[in-house]
Amino acid sequence: MAKVAFIGVGNMGAPMARNLVKAGHEVHVFDIVATNMQSVQGAHMAEQAQFAVAGAPFVISMLPESRHVQSLYLGEKGLLAHIAPTALVIDCSTISAQASREVAHAAADRGIAMMDAPVSGGTNGAAAGTLTFMVGAQEEHLARARPLLEQMGKNIFHAGAPGAGQAAKLANNMLLGIMMAGTCEALALGVANGLDPKVLSDIMKQSSGGNWVLERYNPWPGVAQGVPAANHYAGGFGVDLMLKDLGLATEAAMASKSVTTLGEVARNLFALHSRLGHGKLDFSSILKTIQNHTD
Amino acid sequence: MAKVAFIGVGNMGAPMARNLVKAGHEVHVFDIVATNMQSVQGAHMAEQAQFAVAGAPFVISMLPESRHVQSLYLGEKGLLAHIAPTALVIDCSTISAQASREVAHAAADRGIAMMDAPVSGGTNGAAAGTLTFMVGAQEEHLARARPLLEQMGKNIFHAGAPGAGQAAKLANNMLLGIMMAGTCEALALGVANGLDPKVLSDIMKQSSGGNWVLERYNPWPGVAQGVPAANHYAGGFGVDLMLKDLGLATEAAMASKSVTTLGEVARNLFALHSRLGHGKLDFSSILKTIQNHTD
Amino acid sequence: MAKVAFIGVGNMGAPMARNLVKAGHEVHVFDIVATNMQSVQGAHMAEQAQFAVAGAPFVISMLPESRHVQSLYLGEKGLLAHIAPTALVIDCSTISAQASREVAHAAADRGIAMMDAPVSGGTNGAAAGTLTFMVGAQEEHLARARPLLEQMGKNIFHAGAPGAGQAAKLANNMLLGIMMAGTCEALALGVANGLDPKVLSDIMKQSSGGNWVLERYNPWPGVAQGVPAANHYAGGFGVDLMLKDLGLATEAAMASKSVTTLGEVARNLFALHSRLGHGKLDFSSILKTIQNHTD
Amino acid sequence: MAKVAFIGVGNMGAPMARNLVKAGHEVHVFDIVATNMQSVQGAHMAEQAQFAVAGAPFVISMLPESRHVQSLYLGEKGLLAHIAPTALVIDCSTISAQASREVAHAAADRGIAMMDAPVSGGTNGAAAGTLTFMVGAQEEHLARARPLLEQMGKNIFHAGAPGAGQAAKLANNMLLGIMMAGTCEALALGVANGLDPKVLSDIMKQSSGGNWVLERYNPWPGVAQGVPAANHYAGGFGVDLMLKDLGLATEAAMASKSVTTLGEVARNLFALHSRLGHGKLDFSSILKTIQNHTD
Repeated sequence: MAKVAFIGVGNMGAPMARNLVKAGHEVHVFDIVATNMQSVQGAHMAEQAQFAVAGAPFVISMLPESRHVQSLYLGEKGLLAHIAPTALVIDCSTISAQASREVAHAAADRGIAMMDAPVSGGTNGAAAGTLTFMVGAQEEHLARARPLLEQMGKNIFHAGAPGAGQAAKLANNMLLGIMMAGTCEALALGVANGLDPKVLSDIMKQSSGGNWVLERYNPWPGVAQGVPAANHYAGGFGVDLMLKDLGLATEAAMASKSVTTLGEVARNLFALHSRLGHGKLDFSSILKTIQNHTD
Repeated sequence: MAKVAFIGVGNMGAPMARNLVKAGHEVHVFDIVATNMQSVQGAHMAEQAQFAVAGAPFVISMLPESRHVQSLYLGEKGLLAHIAPTALVIDCSTISAQASREVAHAAADRGIAMMDAPVSGGTNGAAAGTLTFMVGAQEEHLARARPLLEQMGKNIFHAGAPGAGQAAKLANNMLLGIMMAGTCEALALGVANGLDPKVLSDIMKQSSGGNWVLERYNPWPGVAQGVPAANHYAGGFGVDLMLKDLGLATEAAMASKSVTTLGEVARNLFALHSRLGHGKLDFSSILKTIQNHTD
Repeated sequence: MAKVAFIGVGNMGAPMARNLVKAGHEVHVFDIVATNMQSVQGAHMAEQAQFAVAGAPFVISMLPESRHVQSLYLGEKGLLAHIAPTALVIDCSTISAQASREVAHAAADRGIAMMDAPVSGGTNGAAAGTLTFMVGAQEEHLARARPLLEQMGKNIFHAGAPGAGQAAKLANNMLLGIMMAGTCEALALGVANGLDPKVLSDIMKQSSGGNWVLERYNPWPGVAQGVPAANHYAGGFGVDLMLKDLGLATEAAMASKSVTTLGEVARNLFALHSRLGHGKLDFSSILKTIQNHTD
Repeated sequence: MAKVAFIGVGNMGAPMARNLVKAGHEVHVFDIVATNMQSVQGAHMAEQAQFAVAGAPFVISMLPESRHVQSLYLGEKGLLAHIAPTALVIDCSTISAQASREVAHAAADRGIAMMDAPVSGGTNGAAAGTLTFMVGAQEEHLARARPLLEQMGKNIFHAGAPGAGQAAKLANNMLLGIMMAGTCEALALGVANGLDPKVLSDIMKQSSGGNWVLERYNPWPGVAQGVPAANHYAGGFGVDLMLKDLGLATEAAMASKSVTTLGEVARNLFALHSRLGHGKLDFSSILKTIQNHTD
């Protein structure tokens, strides 16, 4: 079992760190919110991030945005100065591919191996140890990280070189945002034309409209069980988090002059939905704004 | 085996009728293009539609647009006047739900049972007898039609009352159009950011971006075999046919004041693609317009 | 002064007819809602439309939708059978270009001259006699109609042959819908980035963003006076009427395979806005949905 | 007459600097491309930017992107360290409002007054001295700058505090992008429905569709003279420059969670148009992609 430094133990990081503790690792956590650290029982709490990483062969980070990751690792006071050159740094944050590459290059300049491994699966997946990792890394680095990742997740995809994990995640989540809003449009259109939402869902699921949303995450209340739509859109993957991911896709599209018209329209639908006051609901609640009726 | 009148034996109708002949039915075909009729070997060719339907317990029609179906069945010279009240009329055309209901009501006024059963699966599915039928019908009428439908198709979905088959098909195909264009956007964005299209396809297929397009119809040349993208986008489901279906969805959305922003944007992407000269290619060729690069 | 039959004296038709009475014409009105007729003082009320048109050299109609116009004039019981071949029929309804041409052709078959002359300017313009007419007509027919039109409106544009008036109006109003929503987006974006809405309006009005909305119809409350935004979006041009006009543009775009992506997105924004319960407000209220904030 | 340092004398900066020379100022230019400097006859060429600004009461910069402005002024080797605290810095670059504020704050920290004054009017306006300036500045700073600005431009708008000039410009140009594409859609729709583009342009110009594009910049070849459409879309305001400005609007919209659906769709239309190989044409050439026909 290894010594693992884990920086950022919020809603996602804490259950991930707990799974590493459970697997027998010596986990040293740090979070700028001290009470977050207390939620990882069995872990060592560090007063500063640099204390957590000292001598650790693995450093994992799980932070909200690009600027947090950049500010953690880079600069004169950055953590890279305190990490052993033999260590492997695994950043699980969902940030821009560009920021991810920037930090990986800075790490490489110091001889430190770094990989991006953003996740999907939400807090439930983090707790259950069933996350999906999309990894941007050299082959040998992924091989070294795999045992750790397998204690936190189920599917581990190798997307390519550093930065590729972020690129894969933003492409996937942009498609997910389009599919969720598109599935809501199709269901609302069918229902407005006399169809039963469950019957239509079943038909499309087995036809060329079939997709993950219809299989696992039906947005229409009453059609599926155990999904946010069955629970007033509580829990799940929040509208504002989807909005953040769609924003990362937009940035990548602008940087590469890509055409993502549907992605942009989906982003604006979620932005409008958030402005209507639904930012904290699960993202399948976009149905409410698409299907809204006042009569 | 039954006597079946089959009106409209073009690209889709002809192979469907051939499957009925093969199953042993006495098939009487009519088409305004006489040479079309000759392509259904073993069928009786009628000089007029009314001769084909005389005494037939089943009447099947497969025509291009709403106006053709309306003009075939309705009015003083319409075919309903020549169909036996005990007959079952199965319209397999993809037309507007509204036109479909209008004809079904006119049939009901004469005591004739009518159902809409639009198909998906294309000319390949028609030839192989593996079409999907989306049926709008009373239960007992579908029960009567089922043996015939099973000789032409594999999946038979009961969407609801007359008109519901059309509503289900247009909702499904609108979602398909959105997913195809959305999947192309996600793949193009990923590739522009350094990913391999096959690797990204595999990742999204197993993640929350998973959908029928990635499973069966990958639009990126070289990723999947046996799909139109592997064959210069020849064959398959034409851009102009997708455009027609998206137009039916638009009509239904306007009639029901539904919000289908992504559906409309997808329709305009296919319209633009068609105007660029690609109307006859398979609809997965939308990738060319989304990813176009001139350097 | 001439005998004029005026069919359809609702919100728009009544003030138009009143202006003709005021100008000294002998006006015979008909409306299926009897009380509507009473609002045109000095006019003769007809019990049936055919009585109104008997012997009238001018027939004007102002009806809500294509189907009303078709049903008024066409068919065995249609009004064309009762109109003198020497009469000039002026349809001021806003309907589809296709329906307009269909009725004009049926009139021509009977030797009756017909023109489409849809208006803009709303109920205020109708009352003030300052409407804008967009006319589809032969030159000589417009020349005959001009004196009448000038008593109801200020600007009279000759768009082309019959049907062209409708085509011009739907193109103009689609652009207006795009500009209104686009101007709201620009103002909301500027204000969210620290600008004063009045200062920004003034700058854009004099720059390359200048348009009719900024000049005459500023949607931001407090910026301009005498506009619906200054009066809680009451009065003016209703959201549902804009939605109707954008729908006519969509129909025309689909029939001509035109690409109108922005037009479609604008239509869906107004549809969403209407579903949120604002269908009866002035169309500049779209700002509320674009700029909505819950904090 | 004053000593003026002018950093960045490319396509836009050079003619602006020439107008200052012409007005009698002592202009010291710097550009990383040495030959650019030679195009400003009568100016002093500086070997380094810091030599140009030494002792100059006015410093003007005109650079391509946010990062160039940041890298010019900020950091240990940044130009701010060499500018006199009594000087007034006028950045005419079109960059993000956020980057603009960042540099203005850094200047303020050193007691240096800074204002953003992005322009519109293109290279023609720069040469003719008829640019429009949108200024973000304190009142007294604008008062000091006004005489200089009036030698380079005609309209000087005070948008608000530092950063407001950029915010106003991106709001205006987003609206311009929407209006250009929207006007093209309306014209193409009308022409596809039988109208003459000149007649339709005249009608809309005088109606509620009226806007700057129809007044000054008609995109339909043959309708107006002296516009890029009359010259194969050469000259004018390039597609890729419009794309850059729409990208700045997107960034501002994401930062402020604003809904700019039409702005995003317009941006993607220009991105698609650029990918089709038209990036260097005038932005009114978007008509080609919207109206494209292959028959």
